[in-house]
Amino acid sequence: MQLKKLFPIVAAAALVPTLGLAQDEALSAERVNSEMVFIMNTLLFLMGGFLVFFMAAGFAMLETGLVRSKNATMQLVKNVALFSLASIAYFVVGFNLMYPGDGWIIEGWMGGFSSTSLEPVGVAYDDLNDVTYASIGSDFIFQLMFCAATASIVSGAVAERIKLWPFLIFVIILTGLIYPIQASWSWGGGFLSEAGFSDFAGSSIVHGAGGWAALAGVLILGSRAGKYGKDGRVTVMPGSNLPLATLGMFILWLGWFGFNGGSQLAMGTVSDVADVSRIFANTNTAAAGGAIAALILTQVLYKKVDLTMVLNGALAGLVSITAEPLAPGLGLATLIGAVGGVIVVFTVPMLDKMKIDDVVGAIPVHLFAGIWGTLAVVLSNSDASIGAQIYGIVAIGAFMFVVSGIFWFILKMVMGIRVSDEDQMTGLDTSELGMEAYPEFGSR
Amino acid sequence: MQLKKLFPIVAAAALVPTLGLAQDEALSAERVNSEMVFIMNTLLFLMGGFLVFFMAAGFAMLETGLVRSKNATMQLVKNVALFSLASIAYFVVGFNLMYPGDGWIIEGWMGGFSSTSLEPVGVAYDDLNDVTYASIGSDFIFQLMFCAATASIVSGAVAERIKLWPFLIFVIILTGLIYPIQASWSWGGGFLSEAGFSDFAGSSIVHGAGGWAALAGVLILGSRAGKYGKDGRVTVMPGSNLPLATLGMFILWLGWFGFNGGSQLAMGTVSDVADVSRIFANTNTAAAGGAIAALILTQVLYKKVDLTMVLNGALAGLVSITAEPLAPGLGLATLIGAVGGVIVVFTVPMLDKMKIDDVVGAIPVHLFAGIWGTLAVVLSNSDASIGAQIYGIVAIGAFMFVVSGIFWFILKMVMGIRVSDEDQMTGLDTSELGMEAYPEFGSR
Amino acid sequence: MQLKKLFPIVAAAALVPTLGLAQDEALSAERVNSEMVFIMNTLLFLMGGFLVFFMAAGFAMLETGLVRSKNATMQLVKNVALFSLASIAYFVVGFNLMYPGDGWIIEGWMGGFSSTSLEPVGVAYDDLNDVTYASIGSDFIFQLMFCAATASIVSGAVAERIKLWPFLIFVIILTGLIYPIQASWSWGGGFLSEAGFSDFAGSSIVHGAGGWAALAGVLILGSRAGKYGKDGRVTVMPGSNLPLATLGMFILWLGWFGFNGGSQLAMGTVSDVADVSRIFANTNTAAAGGAIAALILTQVLYKKVDLTMVLNGALAGLVSITAEPLAPGLGLATLIGAVGGVIVVFTVPMLDKMKIDDVVGAIPVHLFAGIWGTLAVVLSNSDASIGAQIYGIVAIGAFMFVVSGIFWFILKMVMGIRVSDEDQMTGLDTSELGMEAYPEFGSR
Repeated sequence: MQLKKLFPIVAAAALVPTLGLAQDEALSAERVNSEMVFIMNTLLFLMGGFLVFFMAAGFAMLETGLVRSKNATMQLVKNVALFSLASIAYFVVGFNLMYPGDGWIIEGWMGGFSSTSLEPVGVAYDDLNDVTYASIGSDFIFQLMFCAATASIVSGAVAERIKLWPFLIFVIILTGLIYPIQASWSWGGGFLSEAGFSDFAGSSIVHGAGGWAALAGVLILGSRAGKYGKDGRVTVMPGSNLPLATLGMFILWLGWFGFNGGSQLAMGTVSDVADVSRIFANTNTAAAGGAIAALILTQVLYKKVDLTMVLNGALAGLVSITAEPLAPGLGLATLIGAVGGVIVVFTVPMLDKMKIDDVVGAIPVHLFAGIWGTLAVVLSNSDASIGAQIYGIVAIGAFMFVVSGIFWFILKMVMGIRVSDEDQMTGLDTSELGMEAYPEFGSR
Repeated sequence: MQLKKLFPIVAAAALVPTLGLAQDEALSAERVNSEMVFIMNTLLFLMGGFLVFFMAAGFAMLETGLVRSKNATMQLVKNVALFSLASIAYFVVGFNLMYPGDGWIIEGWMGGFSSTSLEPVGVAYDDLNDVTYASIGSDFIFQLMFCAATASIVSGAVAERIKLWPFLIFVIILTGLIYPIQASWSWGGGFLSEAGFSDFAGSSIVHGAGGWAALAGVLILGSRAGKYGKDGRVTVMPGSNLPLATLGMFILWLGWFGFNGGSQLAMGTVSDVADVSRIFANTNTAAAGGAIAALILTQVLYKKVDLTMVLNGALAGLVSITAEPLAPGLGLATLIGAVGGVIVVFTVPMLDKMKIDDVVGAIPVHLFAGIWGTLAVVLSNSDASIGAQIYGIVAIGAFMFVVSGIFWFILKMVMGIRVSDEDQMTGLDTSELGMEAYPEFGSR
Repeated sequence: MQLKKLFPIVAAAALVPTLGLAQDEALSAERVNSEMVFIMNTLLFLMGGFLVFFMAAGFAMLETGLVRSKNATMQLVKNVALFSLASIAYFVVGFNLMYPGDGWIIEGWMGGFSSTSLEPVGVAYDDLNDVTYASIGSDFIFQLMFCAATASIVSGAVAERIKLWPFLIFVIILTGLIYPIQASWSWGGGFLSEAGFSDFAGSSIVHGAGGWAALAGVLILGSRAGKYGKDGRVTVMPGSNLPLATLGMFILWLGWFGFNGGSQLAMGTVSDVADVSRIFANTNTAAAGGAIAALILTQVLYKKVDLTMVLNGALAGLVSITAEPLAPGLGLATLIGAVGGVIVVFTVPMLDKMKIDDVVGAIPVHLFAGIWGTLAVVLSNSDASIGAQIYGIVAIGAFMFVVSGIFWFILKMVMGIRVSDEDQMTGLDTSELGMEAYPEFGSR
């Protein structure tokens, strides 16, 4: 019902006690409880939804701060566009493909194709009987944000040399098809769920998946012009705006309360809301552990603290705890996050040695820490088995890497995905867009 | 009651079951439900309040990123000051002028003058009987943010050449008088409400109103020095910090979940919270539609994607869905947003041809897309009529444009509103404030 | 319980009505109410938690925008690291030291040492009987953010010349020991609470405490190289990125809704949620009052509006209302905030005259306005006495200043806390970290 904003006029009596009941029907405690549980669960999805939405801004700022200023406008365009395209692709096909219910095309492996329908306006309580424990719209908006995050991860890794439109076509395929199919295996009730694979909020299903798609892209795309010399020298290409990158990291940390907390999927009981609280506390402390590990380790290894490592350390801590943010205590959560930070510090230079050019460190943060986090589930969750965890990691990895690779390869063949070295030297903002991010700031 | 932070000490028994009941009175399910509905409705306003508050930051960053760096400090001052002044003006007179209840001076056209009184501290349930369905304070804070948004819209259009103090005086008039009177016509139960005009969250009442006030200002103020040559040439004056502008857009998108979702005005029933979820989903997809429309259209028209158009496209999508974010399905919502994006791409250059100098594109985004959104209500809301929608658009437009114009004109006559061309060339930061936004970044 | 994301599959029946009841037990209205109160109180802490968390980003942006660009990376490192360290220190010892319950080492003066334990996963309603009115995890996350804010305040004052590691060691001591002990006196039920000292959300307990620790640090650390000439001349060292600083201010303002609103500590009744609404409204208007006071005053005094004063004016308004955001009406709240803004405008230059080098104005904003706010409680809260307020201010001030001073002094003696003048001239980013914040933006 579209209420008018007649706040001081409308009488309370007209609004409060209806609830869709016939006038003479008495309210039972069961009924009140049942409505409130539905409301609280839906509210959790809505809050989680807007918090995780904001992670799109976090990724955009992190990545734009870590690229050179001559490619900053392009990075912004990509991030706004990828989120927008994911929003459409996920509603047109992704959401129902990920949650097929009984409508699998291949049972447990591939769902069906249909677009998302929201509940009718002003849906009544009694019309919900056969339905579920929260509104479809709230679940849709929450799950959409996870799907879009996958594309944001890819965006950072392939920055500074990929062409705009092939990238965006890949985003549509990733968010409409690849991610939803893979995610249906676990969260949609598919074969990984049956196999006992446990990934609470997506260390592998979201972050690992994005990381694998990014790795395939980076390998097929090649490194940035001038990054790796023939003599094995690696050219450092420092981020142009570290305050912006740090802001992005803080926004991501903020959004992660929704990412992990919302993945409890319910807060209508004492038990559920206390669990959401545990998740908030563990998520925060794992981020702290990752940041501190990177802080200390870069001091020890390089004699100087490295801010970008600290930022990525915090993010790796967050990714690491994402597979199981509920079961650990604060101490174990801190350790799990800290190991994530250590992984980042060691694997970022390792990728450079392998001439795998990941601009923002997305693969160490999301893929490597995501694998660690998925394995670490067994440290606290007695229902999880190391076998099932490895099975999930391998299944997700093989599918994401191979299928992403195939699409990257097709795009490369059909339209080309790489900006020419000359245009890279000029910068994508000038060569591809004709619009500078900071047109007035003199460059050195 | 001012509880001490004695969390682990205070016994649960002392806190949980009181509820203002006499000790021996039994709790009924009706009573519990009634309290919870009040709490959830109030919570919706509070969450909507802080989300829409953050839009003040979004406008500030968007506008500051789109002006030249020599005017950035001034744009920041204006945005902080306008929100602060709106906060005071709306409490002193605006809120009750907008919601006069039975206290109209001219029935349905102009409310009365009194300042806002909050409910007493620790108000008891029984004292609320004759009152309403949510707390006054929460409704006040939510509605205030809408009022302030109107002023933020104006701020962007008149940037880079308006004097600080006349602008701020206009803000006080706008937020204390003009906007509240106009908004009372619809949301306060005035004549537009009676006429069947339907504008759920304010495509016309907020965005159109701000756009009309901005248009009047821009016309009376004139264009920036050097913007339009005598030979008809338009000088491009690119924004100085596009990452900042993009951040602003993302913050606005985030805030819009509160803007539209909160305008459901209730979430204490299954029906209401499911509607809020619909609104979240539709709001998001309309923004995506607007951004994608601008993305594709600028590629087709100019062979290059234009980031500022994409940002404004997303915002135009948001403005377009604001008049009816509940009734459409996801597909129609996407289309409504996409048309908003198309409008922006075509009308931004149109304004330049007409030598109407709108620095950030506020008039296309908020006024033109706002008109479209107000008309588009009839596509999905069967209670709306195109006649009533046009009536509302015209009534609001005429009032806002004429009355704003009168005040702009008086300000121009009395104290002057335009910074001299020389001082504009120097930049307002140096000439008016003596403080640069980026004092260390060498300029080209 | 770790629910799978099987949303459209799981039947509502399986989820909604359990509540930990035996199957044949009927739900009573009391029981439903009791669960809902617990859920709403916990939710308030969680929302307050993520809002106040974001203040860490606000402080980081504010401070980084106000330092010179050659020290920006260092300011970012400090802010990420201090929050991370506070997260660990508060869980390992701070939280239980602040809320000792019956476990005081010195009754009312110093609690005991133990680390935080969260409730078990899936805690049942009946297991909560002897516990409290919200989940421990939610309270922990909320209180942690206050503790970390104290360290953020210090970070701004000592910027641009303190060494990284001694600062971080101080942060651990501050957040693990000094702040929790001090805060236990009031919020943990200690002697200041017994004495009738009233500080709702921490004008003195958080902001004043941070300000005193900062003042001790600044005095022992000394001023930045070149700040105060021998001839008494003060060198202005303008902030390098005012849009970033303004963004930081807006984020802090946003977070303050959680800071003050969450400090109601309950929203499970009509009375509590209406009080939270009052607090939102008062908090907002006090910020506005502070900003406007600084706006007008700098215009009058200097003939030019000073943006950094306006930003600090808004923050001082927020600090001023923090000791009593509930009892005043909107008018008085505006005035209390405005006085805070006036204090800032007069005391910032006063500190410079005293050669106390507070880079971002943290001491005027947090300490001086905090004292004012603590005294102003008596204007609206009839339970407060001016004697008790002064007692609290002096007790907190003496303890924080002396103990912080001792630790600063020890750190100075043991490892040195000050970067050499030469390295300050070079900039901490190059000399200490080898990483520039804006490596491409040519400097003037």
